[in-house]
Order: sequence, then structure tokens, then C-alpha cells
Amino acid sequence: MEATARAHPNIAFIKYWGNRDDHLRIPANSSISMNLDGLSTETTVEWADDIAADYLILNGTAQTGPALERVQRHLDMLRRRLNLSAYARVESTNNFPMGAGIASSASSFAALTVAGVAASGRGDIDERELTRLARLGSGSASRSVPGGFVEWHSGDSHETSYAESMAPENHWALVDVIAVISTAHKAVGSTEGHKSASTSVLQTARVADAALRFEQCKRAILDRDFVTFAEVVERDSNLMHAIMMTSRPPLFYWLPGSLEVMESVRSWRSEGLDVCYTMDAGPNVHCICTQERAAEIETRLRQMTYVVDVRTAGVGGAASVVRVSKR
Amino acid sequence: MEATARAHPNIAFIKYWGNRDDHLRIPANSSISMNLDGLSTETTVEWADDIAADYLILNGTAQTGPALERVQRHLDMLRRRLNLSAYARVESTNNFPMGAGIASSASSFAALTVAGVAASGRGDIDERELTRLARLGSGSASRSVPGGFVEWHSGDSHETSYAESMAPENHWALVDVIAVISTAHKAVGSTEGHKSASTSVLQTARVADAALRFEQCKRAILDRDFVTFAEVVERDSNLMHAIMMTSRPPLFYWLPGSLEVMESVRSWRSEGLDVCYTMDAGPNVHCICTQERAAEIETRLRQMTYVVDVRTAGVGGAASVVRVSKR
Repeated sequence: MEATARAHPNIAFIKYWGNRDDHLRIPANSSISMNLDGLSTETTVEWADDIAADYLILNGTAQTGPALERVQRHLDMLRRRLNLSAYARVESTNNFPMGAGIASSASSFAALTVAGVAASGRGDIDERELTRLARLGSGSASRSVPGGFVEWHSGDSHETSYAESMAPENHWALVDVIAVISTAHKAVGSTEGHKSASTSVLQTARVADAALRFEQCKRAILDRDFVTFAEVVERDSNLMHAIMMTSRPPLFYWLPGSLEVMESVRSWRSEGLDVCYTMDAGPNVHCICTQERAAEIETRLRQMTYVVDVRTAGVGGAASVVRVSKR
Repeated sequence: MEATARAHPNIAFIKYWGNRDDHLRIPANSSISMNLDGLSTETTVEWADDIAADYLILNGTAQTGPALERVQRHLDMLRRRLNLSAYARVESTNNFPMGAGIASSASSFAALTVAGVAASGRGDIDERELTRLARLGSGSASRSVPGGFVEWHSGDSHETSYAESMAPENHWALVDVIAVISTAHKAVGSTEGHKSASTSVLQTARVADAALRFEQCKRAILDRDFVTFAEVVERDSNLMHAIMMTSRPPLFYWLPGSLEVMESVRSWRSEGLDVCYTMDAGPNVHCICTQERAAEIETRLRQMTYVVDVRTAGVGGAASVVRVSKR
């Protein structure tokens, strides 16, 4: 059978950085994110008897090397879980650029997992289990399976590390106005980056405080309290980057333009605009604001020298099966 | 009597950020610095019976408000220590700009202390005591009293918190090539900044690791081991700024140009140039290199868009009494 699934990337408000278990991708701390509407990965999986190996076509190009190997390992896991012996044809398309700070691995492994399970015909795998399976491919992919505002409970085992929606996409009309600073592929993949976290003497302290930030952020989202939300989101982003910059060797994702945008966002908020920033493992700055401010924020960002593009995304829904068919 | 003293500012390799005791300026961790030759504060102190209050002329302008008050408190302390009742005329001149990341409070309070003691005629106050007294005015001023490469033992009391030279100025021909990014006065004075350190959840971890960094840095200086020196100096600077950026509210001293220079310095070092960066509470980037590379580094920095000026300073000597006279 063949199935196509679509999943959204997500932007984390309480970051995942550092694993308790690298192999199972059990994170050091719980995290929170929102899915990004309008940005998506669409993946088709066909479990086929007529091919001799898994193959992967990404954005129209057949993949080899590490990218293919990572997907093959995920397919191996799915085969064990679904009791399949077939190889898979996988075709995947992202409608946004890879490796520039918009988490493509999250939407990719979420879509791959949902499509792979749907194509198997198994009806006994619930959303929570889907988030665990996606997590095994890429930690943050767990958060792209449920809809809206999502929490990934770190847990301390495969069973207890799963994601679930804390509020649906229509709970709070936030927009991620993404200031694109550079579209170059980042030098250090996230999987390797997570291993670097423990080389910073500050990581233990960051993780120890994470549960408090998680609760502050969750409460702010549920209450739609932008002031509290902004403070904890920016602090959490800066805490993650503080660990990155003090790792050995250091990881610097900020570019001069990133700093300029973050400074501007703080300044705009002090003028009364509800906007805050957060950054992932790349130079782009995610400016989170309320829907009524999004156009204004986009206009201001486009005027800045280092901002080469601006993308906007509202709150996205759950990963979904687009179609299933027998081949 | 009247005395004039000259002291150099210093650039810290292992930073002082955060106090164990704010009032006595007992630091949370020990620090290391080198004095900067060619940059100096020259201060004349006259203990006079014919004036009704302390007065301060700084760079030719009579001072009032917080700047005068801070000096008055220091003079009060000196009066108690020296058993004097006279007020003081203080005239001070810096040959470098204030508040832009070149520690003027260090050279200022070192020169003020040395001049004030010299003008009192007291011969029983040794260098170690001078560093304690300077420390009471501004923590890092303790390090501008001795010469060359200096260590400030944090201690845990007034008596045990003092600075001393670990190596003379001719031990290692390092140069601080200062990339000036902006000459604006910084928004948050260092005294207040130190209090902010404890608002970061990362400060305790930074301080806990400081003794190890101190030893690594001291060993590298004594061995003239630039590779080890560069790694620990940059890490220590990034650790301090990590605390600053995650304080509540956050303190961002980096400007876009600062990031650009730091990235360039890392790149040049990977090409084989012995150069490393360190930053204080301001946007300027101190590029520490060996004397034979200084001209090359200066040339490269001057070509960068955001670098508005470049100052170079070799290793400076101890604070010194320039002249003493009876008025």
C-alpha cells in the first residue's frame, strides 16, 4: 500500500537541546512548540515487494549518503514495529528551504512516520504512539504530529517520552514572522549539536531550570498572556544559545543580522508591540506576534539590511494522512 | 601634599562578573588580566585644608552627581584608612574614551588610590594593600596596580581579596588590538551589572568552573602556550556574556559588528594566525595576538565595515607615582 502524509514544521518556545539518551532521543528537558501553518513536508511511502532497497527522493532528487542512511534507519525501526519485511519507496517534498533554522527534520520525520504507518494498514497505532515513533527519527518530529500548541514530555524511557497537544491551533492567533538572514545550510546538524550540549559547563544549570520555564510558558499560552510568554520565550532561546556558544568547540548560530533583529524586536516590544523573538540552530529570527501585528512586523523586518526574506506562518494543525491507496 | 599617579587599564582574560560581597567588592571568582601599555589614567590628588568639599575634575570638566559621589566614597575610605580629615582636589585625565568597553574604572581607581596614598606621605602601605584599597573603589582596579600579567585572588574577605603580578610585562609580548565598534557610553554601569549576574540561572555553574579556567589560563600564560590560552580566553568571555544575556532583564553588549569580528578572529586562527578575542561589558572586541601579528591583525580589522577605529596596546607595567610635592 501507499500513503501520503503532510506535517508542519514547528517552532519551539521551550527548546529541546541535549539528550538524556542520544540513541532513543530521550531529551534532557521537556519542550513546547507551535506548528507552522502553510509550511509543510509532504511524504509518500510505498511499502513495495518489487524493490531491492529503500530509496528516497527529496525535493525531486534521489538521495544517497547520510540523508538516505538516516531515513533507512527510521524505516528499519518502522519495519520492526509494524512487522513488515518490505522495502520502501519514499518521496518527500518540503515547501521551505532546508537547514536554515526552520526545522525540516521535524516535519520530515513526522510525515514519514505517519505515512509509513498509514501505508502499512495498521489501525492500532494511536497519535501518542506516532509521536514516540517520530521521536526516534528526530526528537522534535514528535511535536509535529499533534496539532496546534504542543508539549513533548521528556519522560525517561521510550514509553514515557511522547508529545501531545496542549491547545488547538485556534486557541491563540499567534504568527511566526520569520526573518530570514541566510539560506545557507548550517554547518553542524542538530543530532551532533545535541551531543555538544554536555560539553558546556552551563548545560546542567539550564536543564535544572527547564521545568520552571516549561510551566511558565505553558501557563502563559493557556492564559494567552503575551507579556509573560515573551519574557520566558526569549530567555529560553538565549539560554539555549548560551549553551551553544560555550560548548567545546563553540557553536555560533547568530549572524550580525540576527543580533540586529533581536535588538529591534526588544525595542518594538518596549514601544508596546506584542512581539518576541526566538532562534533555533540557524541564523533566522522567529518573531512571534499576534495576528493583528504580523503585517506591521513584516514591514519593519523587510526594511532591515540583513533580512533577505520574510515568511509568515500562523498556528498549524496536526500531521495528517492526505491519501491512502493500494498500488 | 600632592601626588600624581598613572595607571593602565587592563583587559581580563579570566573575567570578574558577579560579587560574593557587593559592598566590599569581593568577587565570586578569581580573575586574570594584563595591563594595557600606552593607555592610561593620570590622576593628581591634593589633600587640602583650604577647601570645603572634595572636588573632581575629569578630562577637564568638573564632575557632579554619581561620578563625583563614587569618588567621594572612595576618598572617605582613604581618609579613614590614612587617618586624614582633609578634603581632596582630584584631577584626572584618561587618554582613551570612557564607557565603551575599555575599563576606565580600573585605571581610574588604581591611579586615584596610588595618588591618594602617595599624597598622604604614608610609607607603610605596600602594593598588596594598595590593591585591596583600589578594589574597594572598583573591583578590577585591584588588577591595575601591579604590573604585567596580574591575578586577583578572589579571597572571601577584605584581607584575602588582593591582586598580584604573576609575570612581568616583558614575559610575553602579547598585544591587545582593540576593534572599536562604537564609542557610545554603555547603558548599564559595571557595578549594577555585577548585581545582575545572580539573576541568571547559569551564574552558579559559571563560577563553579572558574577555578579550573583560572588555572588553565595561568598555566598557558606562564608557558606562553597560545593555543591553550586562546581556547580558554574565548570560552571565558563567552561564558560571561552567556550569563549577561540570560540575566533578568538580559544585558546584550554584543553589536552586529562585534559578532562579525569574533567570527573573523576564529577564522584567522584556523588559518594559523595566533589571535583570539575577548569582550568586556561593551561592544568592542579585544583581539589578543603576538607582537609579530599585531600589524596584520590591525590591517584586517580596519577593513571591516563595522570597525570604526583600532587601538593597539602592548603589555603595561604597574601603576606608578609620577611625582609628589608639597603644595
